[in-house]
Amino acid sequence: MEKLKVGVIGATGMVGQNYIRLLDNHPWFEVVYVAASSRSAGKTYTESVEGRWLMESGIPVGVRDLMVEEAGNIKAVAEKCDFIFSAVEIDKQSVKNLEDQYAIAGIPVVSNNSAHRHTKDVPMLIPEINHQHIEIIQAQKRRYKTDKGFIVVKPNCSLQSYMTPVYALIAAGYPIKEMIISTLQAVSGAGYPGVSSMNMIDNVVPYIGGEEEKSEIEPLKILGRIKNGEFKNYEGIAISANCNRVPVIDGHVACVNLRFAESRPGIDEIKEIWSSFSSLPQELKLPFAPNKPIIYMEEADRPQPRKDRNLDKAMAVSVGRLRDCNVFDCRFVGLSHNTVRGAAGGGILNAELLKAKGYFG
Amino acid sequence: MEKLKVGVIGATGMVGQNYIRLLDNHPWFEVVYVAASSRSAGKTYTESVEGRWLMESGIPVGVRDLMVEEAGNIKAVAEKCDFIFSAVEIDKQSVKNLEDQYAIAGIPVVSNNSAHRHTKDVPMLIPEINHQHIEIIQAQKRRYKTDKGFIVVKPNCSLQSYMTPVYALIAAGYPIKEMIISTLQAVSGAGYPGVSSMNMIDNVVPYIGGEEEKSEIEPLKILGRIKNGEFKNYEGIAISANCNRVPVIDGHVACVNLRFAESRPGIDEIKEIWSSFSSLPQELKLPFAPNKPIIYMEEADRPQPRKDRNLDKAMAVSVGRLRDCNVFDCRFVGLSHNTVRGAAGGGILNAELLKAKGYFG
Amino acid sequence: MEKLKVGVIGATGMVGQNYIRLLDNHPWFEVVYVAASSRSAGKTYTESVEGRWLMESGIPVGVRDLMVEEAGNIKAVAEKCDFIFSAVEIDKQSVKNLEDQYAIAGIPVVSNNSAHRHTKDVPMLIPEINHQHIEIIQAQKRRYKTDKGFIVVKPNCSLQSYMTPVYALIAAGYPIKEMIISTLQAVSGAGYPGVSSMNMIDNVVPYIGGEEEKSEIEPLKILGRIKNGEFKNYEGIAISANCNRVPVIDGHVACVNLRFAESRPGIDEIKEIWSSFSSLPQELKLPFAPNKPIIYMEEADRPQPRKDRNLDKAMAVSVGRLRDCNVFDCRFVGLSHNTVRGAAGGGILNAELLKAKGYFG
Amino acid sequence: MEKLKVGVIGATGMVGQNYIRLLDNHPWFEVVYVAASSRSAGKTYTESVEGRWLMESGIPVGVRDLMVEEAGNIKAVAEKCDFIFSAVEIDKQSVKNLEDQYAIAGIPVVSNNSAHRHTKDVPMLIPEINHQHIEIIQAQKRRYKTDKGFIVVKPNCSLQSYMTPVYALIAAGYPIKEMIISTLQAVSGAGYPGVSSMNMIDNVVPYIGGEEEKSEIEPLKILGRIKNGEFKNYEGIAISANCNRVPVIDGHVACVNLRFAESRPGIDEIKEIWSSFSSLPQELKLPFAPNKPIIYMEEADRPQPRKDRNLDKAMAVSVGRLRDCNVFDCRFVGLSHNTVRGAAGGGILNAELLKAKGYFG
Repeated sequence: MEKLKVGVIGATGMVGQNYIRLLDNHPWFEVVYVAASSRSAGKTYTESVEGRWLMESGIPVGVRDLMVEEAGNIKAVAEKCDFIFSAVEIDKQSVKNLEDQYAIAGIPVVSNNSAHRHTKDVPMLIPEINHQHIEIIQAQKRRYKTDKGFIVVKPNCSLQSYMTPVYALIAAGYPIKEMIISTLQAVSGAGYPGVSSMNMIDNVVPYIGGEEEKSEIEPLKILGRIKNGEFKNYEGIAISANCNRVPVIDGHVACVNLRFAESRPGIDEIKEIWSSFSSLPQELKLPFAPNKPIIYMEEADRPQPRKDRNLDKAMAVSVGRLRDCNVFDCRFVGLSHNTVRGAAGGGILNAELLKAKGYFG
Repeated sequence: MEKLKVGVIGATGMVGQNYIRLLDNHPWFEVVYVAASSRSAGKTYTESVEGRWLMESGIPVGVRDLMVEEAGNIKAVAEKCDFIFSAVEIDKQSVKNLEDQYAIAGIPVVSNNSAHRHTKDVPMLIPEINHQHIEIIQAQKRRYKTDKGFIVVKPNCSLQSYMTPVYALIAAGYPIKEMIISTLQAVSGAGYPGVSSMNMIDNVVPYIGGEEEKSEIEPLKILGRIKNGEFKNYEGIAISANCNRVPVIDGHVACVNLRFAESRPGIDEIKEIWSSFSSLPQELKLPFAPNKPIIYMEEADRPQPRKDRNLDKAMAVSVGRLRDCNVFDCRFVGLSHNTVRGAAGGGILNAELLKAKGYFG
Repeated sequence: MEKLKVGVIGATGMVGQNYIRLLDNHPWFEVVYVAASSRSAGKTYTESVEGRWLMESGIPVGVRDLMVEEAGNIKAVAEKCDFIFSAVEIDKQSVKNLEDQYAIAGIPVVSNNSAHRHTKDVPMLIPEINHQHIEIIQAQKRRYKTDKGFIVVKPNCSLQSYMTPVYALIAAGYPIKEMIISTLQAVSGAGYPGVSSMNMIDNVVPYIGGEEEKSEIEPLKILGRIKNGEFKNYEGIAISANCNRVPVIDGHVACVNLRFAESRPGIDEIKEIWSSFSSLPQELKLPFAPNKPIIYMEEADRPQPRKDRNLDKAMAVSVGRLRDCNVFDCRFVGLSHNTVRGAAGGGILNAELLKAKGYFG
Repeated sequence: MEKLKVGVIGATGMVGQNYIRLLDNHPWFEVVYVAASSRSAGKTYTESVEGRWLMESGIPVGVRDLMVEEAGNIKAVAEKCDFIFSAVEIDKQSVKNLEDQYAIAGIPVVSNNSAHRHTKDVPMLIPEINHQHIEIIQAQKRRYKTDKGFIVVKPNCSLQSYMTPVYALIAAGYPIKEMIISTLQAVSGAGYPGVSSMNMIDNVVPYIGGEEEKSEIEPLKILGRIKNGEFKNYEGIAISANCNRVPVIDGHVACVNLRFAESRPGIDEIKEIWSSFSSLPQELKLPFAPNKPIIYMEEADRPQPRKDRNLDKAMAVSVGRLRDCNVFDCRFVGLSHNTVRGAAGGGILNAELLKAKGYFG
């Protein structure tokens, strides 16, 4: 099989670097095009990230000498790429316009940005949960007047530590009514340089701008359904999220308290639901799909970010400490790798789903 | 005024060291006696803490050369001390027995231990909340058959970051029905050596043994009332606590979500209730009482442990981020200094209250 | 005694904030004027530092409502201030020009900046070492054609952890020939936001731009002498410094290996030299002078930044681990508080020296 | 090829766990036997490490259900194992006796312990440097009166960050006369629980018991030669080491200042020597041998532990910041992974060398 030609737009930022790292030797995709701001344009990729390459592994051989192009060169992208990953770090309206232009030009856009998360016909995907949402792409193509271009997005990284476990319960017939969450989030979520070390040594910061709102609103669309070519939010659940920054490099932890809408499953039944949960990405054996989307840990003090964030290619959600709750029905701790599952890895899984389902022409 | 003669039992451990540090130059109390395990007995205090003095300031001059005695020498304590602070770090049953013996021997015990927290006639004090609970000491004296000795305890350190703000609302006529809390707790709460650095670099641990139970049960006694010489728990509130360890030296943070039992106060009214809250320790101008027990911070990202834990002699609770909750009524972030307000400083405030009310003979 | 009126130029940056904090209730000096960039000008000091006040204590009452002026308003400064602390964080040449203008306008400048450190007639002061260097101010005044204005500077913060102990040995008759130093420096030395938390969690950075050069060259001037109205560097010593950034908030540690030029003192003699070392600031009882400039710690594992940086108002240098060296003669570990002794506190001590010696008119 | 049967003695400690982790799927060796203290004996390996498995990956399938045996059962080891890795964490004399017994019983011992490092006929191996030292094993076998059993050891982990680069220079004809080193060492070097988090948050500790002595003495044997069946230390070099503990999980950094004995190579020549350095493990293509034993990084601020410790299977030494020294000739920064290259990985490489050279019968 010939690999699909991929462009990474915003390739020099932290999420972009993760795309470059994770796509190295990908069985289906090959990075042939990298774009960034005009400051980087005209340099090789290696030159453009000199002194700010943040990955632990080196720059992949195939990308090192690619010339960095300006992000706005739609025509070049259309010629060279089968689809793109959008990871630009500019203002929201500019991202929106740029991604619109790509789509109109017939380029599928797998975006990491929040700009189009609430566009009515753009699916916000966690493939294990709402893979069927890609059907709305037809409506989108009509709006963009193209038969090839479209946009899909992924949700905020903080959700990933609990949305799959929560969805597994809903899917098993246990709808959830109320959910209170407190997160302990890693600094990589703020990009680079991001959070000052002056705020993270011997400290935590009980605030992350915009994060609580995203954590409370985005699940409603993810759990929603398509009606007349647009999304209707799920309405049965109320969510309250308290987001905290902690001195951890990668891995968002969430303490989750749940009240079910109707009957509640027992502790053992929940563990069984999670352990047996599997979805389309697993069925299709997508390269980035974890073998088990949810890994339950019986140890009293797990999951922990440094020890568990990399489980199953850093794409699994690990959960633990499931127990009854004095106020709601039950509570647990969830963990996911925010820059892999919650960012570039999640974007790649989205692209794999689209490829497998024939959306890349 | 002549100072009261004080013994610190368990003087070489971390809480004990904090007592020694904080009692230096205390206007009412003077440390004249230090006791520890038999390993330390017979050395000077300086010798006994060599290589494990954890305080940032030096050993106070008046204590340096005190001979460390064995903790079990009740008679010597009775002769030399007007009262004692108990900070021994041994098993719970042994603490219980030891403190009983002190009380029976006529020695008032201001304890930092959890052993007697649920003894039916032992008050568990946060003086701003339940100073009137000291009345039960009469019942206790009858039980111990002494007219001088008794025991008072303080609650677990994790509570202190939210119990005073929560009580202030209840006292203002807004009873609370449900409370879900997630804490981010400092390593000093685990003593020394306590938590391994292997678990705290680039990591958080979403579990602290026994801490959630204490956080859920102790408030019920603190808010309770005395009936027939014993405590009846407050029954109107359900509490669920998720306790996490984070790489912070001192200062416990709590994210608190609240549902009121009846009507709810508005955000501004809550701030007003907190800002104007004052209690007996303030009225009596006890030396360790903070001027304002609750300090509300308007900045979006406060309180933070490293920056705010030391406010008002490290005895104030700082709160911030008060806002409506999508699930309950409102939510906020609280912070207190766990080894001062939550341990030795809280014990000293208890002793000051007892002294001011004439309980030290 | 009426307090001298002081301006803090660059009052909103991290060093400026430290000046504001440390000058609160200073017995000789009173902050009457604060200046910063045009962005802050026209706001109150409180408004100008909103969201970026980094000190653990609050903004001092007397400064809260001062209006922030633009740094370049020389005339206003000349009218209102007896002298200024310069802590502006702009490019070196601009600092140089600005400080020149102040001096020419008759305003004594006590600078924290590096711009004038190698100006031939500007003294670079560590008062315990080279207080007599202030004599060169006469030459400077002639150059600036003023009888009041002049500039003094302080050296780089990294030096402070070893220069006083090293000087004490030289002063005792043991000149040093070779010195190899490795530092472990705190993040506050890089200002705010400074070092990204992405570089400081589970990491050290073995490089600080420009720091090694300063550590190697500045001592030569500090130990130098005045000849014909300018400084001649000390020539007998060769210094090599390796500077590392570590995840510590405050406090620079230095591992120092020394070879003496002639005979070497024994270990006990060195300890005696350090313990008995005292200098003019101590003799004059300057308010910010530590009682003992050098504190020797006998514990095997001290000094440590978190535990020892605040010794004696954070103005003492603590040293420990003095032992023979297999290659040179001896070695030791030094520690000083980089934002107090190494920055604002050091500047205040310089000002106190100048005041005591009559240089402020 | 049938795999050699391997026992890991001390399999439950941190180094032992690293052996278990790194030997998973090893092409030549298979773990068939695990031993630990009597406390663990009789449990499965999984049971014995419950709650203290510190590796990021899970317990390898082939080891999970092995029964843990007591360390002292020499006969069982002799029957089941072709050789053993010794990683017991008991007192030095006991280790010495135990390893002697294994050797006498005809079992080759590849040890991680320091007990036999200075035994006159036990080679202390860094295979890239002194692989030829294994010849002394003949003398050892005569002493132990066995034709199969023997002991080899590896040096302290702190050395690994600079000994290979230093040796490469010596081997290229540039003997070194004086070397001053300051290390910044990771907490994993102290085992688990090891260093308290109370000492590692916002702190560094400028002392590691015994570490400086090892760093100064062990290189002399490594660089030494065999004469009359015992080692003669290298005598031309004087080494002074200052060892510091820093809040890093894995990866020891060393700042190294060097004076050559005779002529000195230029900066470019040194880089060339390092880049082209290769030795027997590379020639033999041993599985754990890094492709390039020394990786030079041109970036101004590298190597850094979190970013570079895992280079080339965590078996390479990364170096950077090579520059002239004001006191000696030149200086550089070295980094190696202390629990892989400096412990279990280094032990495995030693075993691979012995296997390749026919020492395992």
